[in-house]
Amino acid sequence: MSADAAPPLRIDGLQYCNWSREIFLEMRAGGLTAVHATASYHEGFRQTVRHLVDWRARFHEHEDLILLARNWSDVERARASGRTAIFLGLQTPMAIEDDLGLIEILFDLGVRFMQLTYNNQSLLGCGWMEREDSGVTRMGREAIAEMNRVGMAVDLSHAGERTALEAIELSRRPVVISHANPRWLKDTGRNVSKAVLKALRERGGVLGLSLYPLHLPQGGATTLRQFGEMAAEAAQIIGVERLGVGSDLCQNQPDSVVRWMREGRWTRVKDDAAAFPPPPEWFRSNRDFPALADGLAAVGFAPGEIASVLGGAWGNFIAQSF
Amino acid sequence: MSADAAPPLRIDGLQYCNWSREIFLEMRAGGLTAVHATASYHEGFRQTVRHLVDWRARFHEHEDLILLARNWSDVERARASGRTAIFLGLQTPMAIEDDLGLIEILFDLGVRFMQLTYNNQSLLGCGWMEREDSGVTRMGREAIAEMNRVGMAVDLSHAGERTALEAIELSRRPVVISHANPRWLKDTGRNVSKAVLKALRERGGVLGLSLYPLHLPQGGATTLRQFGEMAAEAAQIIGVERLGVGSDLCQNQPDSVVRWMREGRWTRVKDDAAAFPPPPEWFRSNRDFPALADGLAAVGFAPGEIASVLGGAWGNFIAQSF
Repeated sequence: MSADAAPPLRIDGLQYCNWSREIFLEMRAGGLTAVHATASYHEGFRQTVRHLVDWRARFHEHEDLILLARNWSDVERARASGRTAIFLGLQTPMAIEDDLGLIEILFDLGVRFMQLTYNNQSLLGCGWMEREDSGVTRMGREAIAEMNRVGMAVDLSHAGERTALEAIELSRRPVVISHANPRWLKDTGRNVSKAVLKALRERGGVLGLSLYPLHLPQGGATTLRQFGEMAAEAAQIIGVERLGVGSDLCQNQPDSVVRWMREGRWTRVKDDAAAFPPPPEWFRSNRDFPALADGLAAVGFAPGEIASVLGGAWGNFIAQSF
Repeated sequence: MSADAAPPLRIDGLQYCNWSREIFLEMRAGGLTAVHATASYHEGFRQTVRHLVDWRARFHEHEDLILLARNWSDVERARASGRTAIFLGLQTPMAIEDDLGLIEILFDLGVRFMQLTYNNQSLLGCGWMEREDSGVTRMGREAIAEMNRVGMAVDLSHAGERTALEAIELSRRPVVISHANPRWLKDTGRNVSKAVLKALRERGGVLGLSLYPLHLPQGGATTLRQFGEMAAEAAQIIGVERLGVGSDLCQNQPDSVVRWMREGRWTRVKDDAAAFPPPPEWFRSNRDFPALADGLAAVGFAPGEIASVLGGAWGNFIAQSF
């Protein structure tokens, strides 16, 4: 297949669906070349390895649709064979416990992204929900250096402002914020400030725009055009060549999963009302991914810029990082 | 380096030393091209992974002397650069718990050999010290198939007779007995019968002759010539092309380690007198490996046969299996 005949590069920088053949078929229907899939949240090392075993079973059972991606050549392989390359990641660093050696172990097993924090204080840094962000910890500095050494991407989604700025500064390789939006359009600490975006740009990092309703300017009522407007504002700060999508698609997950995400095992205060918010009507599954182009086109993105946001920016990051 | 100029292939099929730079220097002094090193005995998955992390630190710290071996090309790389290729193995299947998926995980992390049993009943089969050997278990059949699939070698050292015979029959790939001697020369269930050796031969397996005193005909007083005589008897049954050395060298280990080997965590009956037996005076370290040729030559092995026993047989197995 010549480069001209290859399908367009479409990459989603974060999903955590209730994985099934149906989802993988929808990835194909949406033409997704690659997806960064969360393998673990609060799970420790052993349970994370079990999830990796489950993923291997999925790759075997659905080998006509998906493959385990370790680097750019796997993306090309997926593209050439009409499949989706799945990059695996962790949304907390619990899987490495307090053992720096587990970073290389998990890398060897296919993990390519790890968040330093998830909302709360971790052993590596501070999440956005703590009262005070004391920055990257002593172990956090070691972990960033080790992730740089082996080639695992530092993901600062869910981090606090100070931790994010310090980590961007400390990392010798570009870091990512796989799924978050401009904070000045939706004021939640979960979104990112201009200061963080500027720092990310200076160090060659990537931002993936989130389609999770709680991160969107008008929640689930946000229109596709408003998504385009948000992308335009983000592009002004970080540059369109470093702007991608990290949809945070959590399709078919029961509400118990959002409670697990928020409460893990660290609190006895339960929020029984916690539920996944209804998604915007224009982004309910991977099938809707290509039409994001319409929202970008509506606010003036050129075709080459749209290609960058829907895949090129992540593609460049993957090609250079892994 | 041309093939003619390459140093002779010298491979030891099993060691469990108290690893140190001194030991690795002795491997070089003895011209060891490759060594199968035990990474775990009774350790579970998590602790085994920690041992693998420790091994990675050793490979990094002593990269001028050793390297992690995953296949034959690593042996060639070691040979060409004057280093020793280390193949890692497990002497019990405790590291895979009851999770078949961990076989592939450990394989990906570099483990290339796993014993089905160590003296006692395991989840996979029966060790030689149980009163009755009920053979390969249900999970054992699955584990052998999975090891065959991913390419991890089945090691039947320490197995019971029935388990060994059944495993040889079940395995679609050649299996090994990495460290044991002919039972008719030293009558312990730890050594192997003619029936097992014949079955091993029929399926293309390899036997590594042990130099551990308790496995030798005259214990630590066994002479180098008697070692040669033992090798000649073994070669008559299994064939010289499938006969190697698995020295079971446990150099510099404190006696607490032999108690750990024997007692693990499964008994409260302690044998405080347990101690490593003194080694034969002609095999105290890797430096003594080349001189094993003298014992073989003394009883009539031809140069090509000696080369096979000291490295060729294991080399062929590695080249074909990994």
